Amino acid sequence: MLTSEILQKELKAKPILKVGGAFDAMSAKLIEINGFDAIWAGSFAISATHALPDASIMTMTEFLGVASNMVESCKIPVIADCDTGFGGPSNISHMIKKYENAGIAAISIEDKIFPKQNSLLENGRQELISEKEFVAKIIAAREAKQNKEFMIIARTEALIAGMGMNEALKRANAYEDAGADAILIHSKKDTSNEVFEFSDMWNGNIPLVVVPTSYPSVNLDELISHKIRMVIYANQSLRVAHAAMSRVLQEINKTKSLTEVKEKMSTMEQIFELQEMYNIKKEEDAVEEELKKLGYIN
Amino acid sequence: MLTSEILQKELKAKPILKVGGAFDAMSAKLIEINGFDAIWAGSFAISATHALPDASIMTMTEFLGVASNMVESCKIPVIADCDTGFGGPSNISHMIKKYENAGIAAISIEDKIFPKQNSLLENGRQELISEKEFVAKIIAAREAKQNKEFMIIARTEALIAGMGMNEALKRANAYEDAGADAILIHSKKDTSNEVFEFSDMWNGNIPLVVVPTSYPSVNLDELISHKIRMVIYANQSLRVAHAAMSRVLQEINKTKSLTEVKEKMSTMEQIFELQEMYNIKKEEDAVEEELKKLGYIN
Amino acid sequence: MLTSEILQKELKAKPILKVGGAFDAMSAKLIEINGFDAIWAGSFAISATHALPDASIMTMTEFLGVASNMVESCKIPVIADCDTGFGGPSNISHMIKKYENAGIAAISIEDKIFPKQNSLLENGRQELISEKEFVAKIIAAREAKQNKEFMIIARTEALIAGMGMNEALKRANAYEDAGADAILIHSKKDTSNEVFEFSDMWNGNIPLVVVPTSYPSVNLDELISHKIRMVIYANQSLRVAHAAMSRVLQEINKTKSLTEVKEKMSTMEQIFELQEMYNIKKEEDAVEEELKKLGYIN
Amino acid sequence: MLTSEILQKELKAKPILKVGGAFDAMSAKLIEINGFDAIWAGSFAISATHALPDASIMTMTEFLGVASNMVESCKIPVIADCDTGFGGPSNISHMIKKYENAGIAAISIEDKIFPKQNSLLENGRQELISEKEFVAKIIAAREAKQNKEFMIIARTEALIAGMGMNEALKRANAYEDAGADAILIHSKKDTSNEVFEFSDMWNGNIPLVVVPTSYPSVNLDELISHKIRMVIYANQSLRVAHAAMSRVLQEINKTKSLTEVKEKMSTMEQIFELQEMYNIKKEEDAVEEELKKLGYIN
Repeated sequence: MLTSEILQKELKAKPILKVGGAFDAMSAKLIEINGFDAIWAGSFAISATHALPDASIMTMTEFLGVASNMVESCKIPVIADCDTGFGGPSNISHMIKKYENAGIAAISIEDKIFPKQNSLLENGRQELISEKEFVAKIIAAREAKQNKEFMIIARTEALIAGMGMNEALKRANAYEDAGADAILIHSKKDTSNEVFEFSDMWNGNIPLVVVPTSYPSVNLDELISHKIRMVIYANQSLRVAHAAMSRVLQEINKTKSLTEVKEKMSTMEQIFELQEMYNIKKEEDAVEEELKKLGYIN
Repeated sequence: MLTSEILQKELKAKPILKVGGAFDAMSAKLIEINGFDAIWAGSFAISATHALPDASIMTMTEFLGVASNMVESCKIPVIADCDTGFGGPSNISHMIKKYENAGIAAISIEDKIFPKQNSLLENGRQELISEKEFVAKIIAAREAKQNKEFMIIARTEALIAGMGMNEALKRANAYEDAGADAILIHSKKDTSNEVFEFSDMWNGNIPLVVVPTSYPSVNLDELISHKIRMVIYANQSLRVAHAAMSRVLQEINKTKSLTEVKEKMSTMEQIFELQEMYNIKKEEDAVEEELKKLGYIN
Repeated sequence: MLTSEILQKELKAKPILKVGGAFDAMSAKLIEINGFDAIWAGSFAISATHALPDASIMTMTEFLGVASNMVESCKIPVIADCDTGFGGPSNISHMIKKYENAGIAAISIEDKIFPKQNSLLENGRQELISEKEFVAKIIAAREAKQNKEFMIIARTEALIAGMGMNEALKRANAYEDAGADAILIHSKKDTSNEVFEFSDMWNGNIPLVVVPTSYPSVNLDELISHKIRMVIYANQSLRVAHAAMSRVLQEINKTKSLTEVKEKMSTMEQIFELQEMYNIKKEEDAVEEELKKLGYIN
Repeated sequence: MLTSEILQKELKAKPILKVGGAFDAMSAKLIEINGFDAIWAGSFAISATHALPDASIMTMTEFLGVASNMVESCKIPVIADCDTGFGGPSNISHMIKKYENAGIAAISIEDKIFPKQNSLLENGRQELISEKEFVAKIIAAREAKQNKEFMIIARTEALIAGMGMNEALKRANAYEDAGADAILIHSKKDTSNEVFEFSDMWNGNIPLVVVPTSYPSVNLDELISHKIRMVIYANQSLRVAHAAMSRVLQEINKTKSLTEVKEKMSTMEQIFELQEMYNIKKEEDAVEEELKKLGYIN
């Protein structure tokens, strides 16, 4: 089964899907191991691990490379954050073909101008393109996709850009009409009120998605009761990795030996397991077994 | 100044260099920020973050891509772990040109057979190529390098392979004669005795390098007193990131909201700072300033 | 239908398949346009266009990138020349997954030592690995493939290495037993005698493939009557492109204006057509049509 | 000496520089071998060989990859066609660092909107961004460059967009003031009149560059007498390669054997020479010589 089909099926079967944010294949696999429904290949986290600003600096080639690595090592669906779509409608067409071929289950595009800046950046520039222009991008995406289960998530930044609830709803409806398969409604408020006001007024037929980075106190039951169907924990794995590495590196540099380091480390064995080091041994054994059958080894 | 020159200069100026293991540009930058002398772009850690075995599975192109990202975001030297050199002497020639052009300060190659397996893998296959074959690789590397400060670190796995102290010393001497700029003596014993026996008997003229993953209790003063000139903390950053992400993902999946999560996260602001998000703002301001001077803006 | 299924179906339907050698997406598309059955993404031609020796210098990542570009722009099957398989059995496993996922229809691996040298290089080193070692590679390939129609072409260089007809036949039989889906029998003689001696004695059940670079006078009827099922014209497109560019560049450098240049050029329009420049216009029109339906444009 | 220094030096020494358009390392090397002064890594030709439209579809990563291959195999300067700069001023900053680090000698950016369409496309969309917006890009480029010899070529499409001679001159002057190191004045007229009208009226201090694709009858002496300092033969190599491959593939498909094919091919030996196949042999000999000196071989 295609991962896009799995994603659509899970969306139907569960009250809400929990999606974890990853930035490389290891973090993606940890998300899978820890029971999440899908992986968010987020451009903020991926840019951060490249030590580059989240401002349309990295190219589609680079983002797709990271997302493809995730697909190759995980079985759960990968949802790729494609920012503004790397250009106009014709870039989106090209992008959809590339991402769908790579085995990605869904992509998200947002209605900011290109090049964009991170939505949570203080004093960041948060201009949107016109509804018509973004509708054109969604149409291009819809026309380019091969498999109807492949999901196009349209993310509106209308609330972030301060354009008001009516504009956000108007855009979300327009994006659904244009062919979006889900709406990601983004907010930078520190409570869920704004998002819930939106979802309560929403009467579209496609699922709503949220990223509660700025309103972490929202709980799962509230999300479900306010008709949110997918919640993306976009950057917590990145931020704990950053914090833990900062701590351990400071410790190593100030102590005389590694045994003095207090920070808890996974063992080499745990890493070997994640990277399926022993799978190579198993594959080698399988080859050897066949070589025996064929008479090359006694 | 080239980073290879910085590395050579530091080696002369300090009793020992502390090198931190990184696997992407963010971890590399954290190593720089926390005061290490250089960055180790290790193949074990890089393979792990690609969820692939450390067994010569990833290609030179992929490893070089990661190391180049580090070079582009850091000022301290990057030392690239090149495993067995990705083939024979002609592959090494090609590799040296690529790595030197990319601004890498030093590379390390080891005397295992290709494809290799991680040195610390239990029951792993640890065969070496002959001294002559590895000498041929070092000669190829030496002939290919353009700048004499670019360092070729020859890593012998003779102790790991159980070939004894004499073989290790014989090989290290041969590698120096062939043109190596440093010797990495690797051991999987749980104390530093083996490595110190080696270093005490070593009478070569090039620096010794160690990776104390399996003997973490060794301290910096001991290393210095036993003539070790460079210590690589190869995988601690990876292992704390793995541990911290495992913890936080488990927590997120079992709690109802992010505020219940106990694991310490860096703030979004701290990540923005690392990725120099505000630099874009500064660059934009500089452009605006110029536009004013040229009369385009009042 | 997967291109591997198309390839297998064509093999059953036609007396012989004609495969053209390409080195980028444009040459691949010209092969498709001119009626060939499949595209050979040959390592010699691809290395040449990278101005690098055909000696296992380029990495799997680079070769796969080129072959993927072909897949994305062509409908006919792409057969990828994978040289010695980029390492041992575990590298082959990894490679098969990557190539199959990329939509390649078939791969070819050969029984030379790694790193290899081009088979037609005068005084080139032409050593083979043992039959057992290559059988291990074929087993690894077979075990790794997901779709049974994906073809593993085993290429024996036994004749090129001067090991004689019996060794070539023995190896070909062993490779079939190990799971190869076709045998590529290579020869550097200037007539087809050697290859036909082989094919006449061959009593295996899988198709035979040849690359008549060194015996260009062989004709299609002879190939068919000697049980050859696939003929690869591996490098003629490369060699005419090289010749034509050499001529035109010499002309341009010696004449005063482009109109004096005699060499026949395709028009800009012909190139635009190949790259489907007008498709963008069509896509834009389709988007505009939808925008009208949705009321955004009058 | 850096290739950017070579380019600047040649510009001072010669009445006009002849630049050949390449699309891969082989075509670049043929340009070098045939005596051109520099290589144009053109986005039209590179897109064509990827069978993709010249419409900002390929990413910076992909274009830079191709240009880097050229740098690695050639000694003469490579000038990279960077279209509109892959985004806004901050993308340009990033791009300049990447291209300069890769050893490129010069880049060209143009004042079209992003995503752009090829300048010679019939009925193509040819809108320009405002002078101010493009000046901002040039400023960003100038601020980002490390080495003052690295050249920023500002290409104005004002004539192509039908904005008239005065606008073209006004923009060219503004671009010089903003820090451009040369002006590429582009025209799609079928004679050189328009370009010469421009160059005769031009009183700036930086060199003028032309691409006479649409006015091939212009001759070198005319160009020199009209103050043109660099002429780019952007796509002739591509177009003869396309034509020659089309002919040979058609021939192969209609004849019974390769010997019936009339199209002139380079020999395998000529290709081996271009890719420096024999250099590997020389490198191997050098290693062997050293192994003898060290006593490993008698």
